[in-house]
Amino acid sequence: MLLSRKADYALRAVRHLSLIPKGTLNSINAIAAAEEIPREFLAKILKDLTRSGILKSFQGVTGGYRLGKKAREISFLDVIEAIEGPLHLNLCTVEGHKCACPVAETCTMRLFWVAQEKSLKKALAKHTFVRYSKTRR
Amino acid sequence: MLLSRKADYALRAVRHLSLIPKGTLNSINAIAAAEEIPREFLAKILKDLTRSGILKSFQGVTGGYRLGKKAREISFLDVIEAIEGPLHLNLCTVEGHKCACPVAETCTMRLFWVAQEKSLKKALAKHTFVRYSKTRR
Repeated sequence: MLLSRKADYALRAVRHLSLIPKGTLNSINAIAAAEEIPREFLAKILKDLTRSGILKSFQGVTGGYRLGKKAREISFLDVIEAIEGPLHLNLCTVEGHKCACPVAETCTMRLFWVAQEKSLKKALAKHTFVRYSKTRR
Repeated sequence: MLLSRKADYALRAVRHLSLIPKGTLNSINAIAAAEEIPREFLAKILKDLTRSGILKSFQGVTGGYRLGKKAREISFLDVIEAIEGPLHLNLCTVEGHKCACPVAETCTMRLFWVAQEKSLKKALAKHTFVRYSKTRR
């Protein structure tokens, strides 16, 4: 039930950008070095985060990345789902109430997973990057 | 952050055995058929569950499996960890306080993961198979 390395790197990249002074940008090389993330892997991650609006990218020699929204408007859940798609704890909770398991109709365990997933997602949605931007500036 | 198929099958196998009448056994074929689990995969799962004491296996033509403890003494966490080893939500919480990530010493996100992991593990440890054995008998 581990968070993927890709999603963990994404969280760290966003945290990093929540700490840079307002109005500035950070290059992919700077983020990769500071967070010790393999550069090519980070490139894919930053693309996903930019596509989802979490980051803004600027081209050119003086280009780079910054947050695409206020730090308090970006949650852990936003970042994880931008990378991995909708978060689920078990296949049986995927796609609304349609369970991927062949004995879904008689499954008495599904509700437990639905409750746990709801609880974790709530915590992840509540945990925004404002706490990091406040702590370090 | 999905539960593995192996651990999900294990939970279903244990639930299945929590529903059979006391003093009886169920064969691997019966469990595989009832829970629609590939037989060879189930064999590995039942071996892990037996090794950990969650199940008891009996050899011979009339052999099979039953719970190795009372249903109320077997939790979801017991079953998942018998299959996957210690449960973690992020690599940074693995091995006590030693983080697998190279920037562990300055990581401000680790405590959040520790708290979420603790909360999920608590819920999984509290959720025992007694509720299934009671429901269906």
